[in-house]
Amino acid sequence: MSDLFERAAAYCTDLQERILSALEELDGGRFRVDDWSRGAPRPLQGEDGPWLGGFGRTRVLEGGRVLEKAGVNFSQVDGRFSIAHAKSMPGSGRAFRATGISLVLHPRSPHIPTVHMNLRRISRTGEDGQELGWFGGGADLTPYYLVEEDCRHFHRTLATACQAHPEVADYPRFKDACDRYFHLPHRGEARGVGGVFFDHLMEQPDATFAFLKTLGDAFLPAWLPIARAHLDDPVSDSQRDWQLIRRGRYVEFNLVHDRGTSFGLKTGGRTESILMSLPSSVRWAYDHRPPAGSAESALLELVSGTPRQWLDPDEAR
Amino acid sequence: MSDLFERAAAYCTDLQERILSALEELDGGRFRVDDWSRGAPRPLQGEDGPWLGGFGRTRVLEGGRVLEKAGVNFSQVDGRFSIAHAKSMPGSGRAFRATGISLVLHPRSPHIPTVHMNLRRISRTGEDGQELGWFGGGADLTPYYLVEEDCRHFHRTLATACQAHPEVADYPRFKDACDRYFHLPHRGEARGVGGVFFDHLMEQPDATFAFLKTLGDAFLPAWLPIARAHLDDPVSDSQRDWQLIRRGRYVEFNLVHDRGTSFGLKTGGRTESILMSLPSSVRWAYDHRPPAGSAESALLELVSGTPRQWLDPDEAR
Repeated sequence: MSDLFERAAAYCTDLQERILSALEELDGGRFRVDDWSRGAPRPLQGEDGPWLGGFGRTRVLEGGRVLEKAGVNFSQVDGRFSIAHAKSMPGSGRAFRATGISLVLHPRSPHIPTVHMNLRRISRTGEDGQELGWFGGGADLTPYYLVEEDCRHFHRTLATACQAHPEVADYPRFKDACDRYFHLPHRGEARGVGGVFFDHLMEQPDATFAFLKTLGDAFLPAWLPIARAHLDDPVSDSQRDWQLIRRGRYVEFNLVHDRGTSFGLKTGGRTESILMSLPSSVRWAYDHRPPAGSAESALLELVSGTPRQWLDPDEAR
Repeated sequence: MSDLFERAAAYCTDLQERILSALEELDGGRFRVDDWSRGAPRPLQGEDGPWLGGFGRTRVLEGGRVLEKAGVNFSQVDGRFSIAHAKSMPGSGRAFRATGISLVLHPRSPHIPTVHMNLRRISRTGEDGQELGWFGGGADLTPYYLVEEDCRHFHRTLATACQAHPEVADYPRFKDACDRYFHLPHRGEARGVGGVFFDHLMEQPDATFAFLKTLGDAFLPAWLPIARAHLDDPVSDSQRDWQLIRRGRYVEFNLVHDRGTSFGLKTGGRTESILMSLPSSVRWAYDHRPPAGSAESALLELVSGTPRQWLDPDEAR
């Protein structure tokens, strides 16, 4: 366990186990175990295209009591960036390795928000043999109904994780980056109420890894209390319908805009593991508009407006 | 009605009416009328981005007896290509106008195939003031269950339309282009059983317009008999479920790969009219595999294999 890459992989493996245990306890169901391995890196689209090898531990729960669809995946891959992709990242050289955890939880109840988290370590080896590594990741919340205290709790928990590592983590900046990233320009809407988002963190790697761990550890405290609070909220047919329509926006974001998804799909990543992020049941209705003054309309106004600051200025810093 | 653009717009307007009448007769329901207008072209993303003006006649039917969701849209727009987009097409200059009909029908029954057709005329004006125009379009069929005679009927009807205009239309070539275009590399699957696809047809414009009209007129004879033949086929829950899962592939193709959709969404086209192509109810299941030997498995093998030739060589030429 000499380097940060291996320590990051070990942390994400352990975090996956802890999150799976907590979610199985919440739901009562069991995650399906689907380990996969590609072995040594091989070219997927010719010499100049991406090369990919490695393995993953995909864990999926479908049709649970609380979680309609949930994926909590660990992967550790290595290979070469395609020549085109190599230019879009810091450093030089095509050889890389990447490890991380990626999770998306789509609850059955529209009163429990969908949540996403991803933590990753990427290292690339230049032609001089030197390895350049960075951390990236984030977490964001996608409610179907606005409960302000839930949003504040989620953001406060993430902000606290950032504030424990002031030398490398900056909640206001990461919150802002999250709002900018999870945005659907064709709808003029945010995907949800945001969270934190960061990439290419390469200064002070030990301190950044410590932050990554604090953030990963904060996931369950950030989301579980929200889920538990709404477990028994009654759900009407029209609330379910609204959830299915909003899930369509989630699909649109992931398939049209999400860089990780489209890169993965276009360069031969494991399709089923990438698309575990898509909700099970989804609906598209032409030009759907919730009635004025409804709770659905309030959510739509929220995601269509300027991103909210969920914390007081002194809480956020 | 001096030029081909106006004649193409008039033809597509009339074809839209004829198709709507036939579909309303089939379904028993009425299409929702949603006309829109943008007025004069205006910049959507700054001076160098796309400029768009014009109008459209969007027609949508949702929740019909036969058609779960159907869009049959006419539009006539003008503006300027973005500088980046301008480079990807024949000719020079940013000023353009485009007109056409675009339709997608998602039947309720999994025994009736989804069908898509698009016919368009695009003209661009070079800096020398000369207008360069071309025709593009196609039609393709996406069945949920394989009925060979349906596929042959659809292809034979389109091939006959091509064969009436041998100087400009080439069924084997257009069929091949369709198979190449409607392909999901991340699934290793075709979207369906294809049809015809062509773009940038600019030689012999009068003859090409005559072909376009023959093809447009062939749409109802190509699809309606297939729909009528399966109106009363019984549908089991598992057949419905298979349809919802396959519809997910349709969404993946349109949002990840379809050039028209992603260009439209990224450059400020009318989102609701563009996304009318998405089915209403859709389902994603992790790593879904139909049982060996089932009808579902036969469809999956079909779309995963080398594209079939539906016509005998002498029928195709």
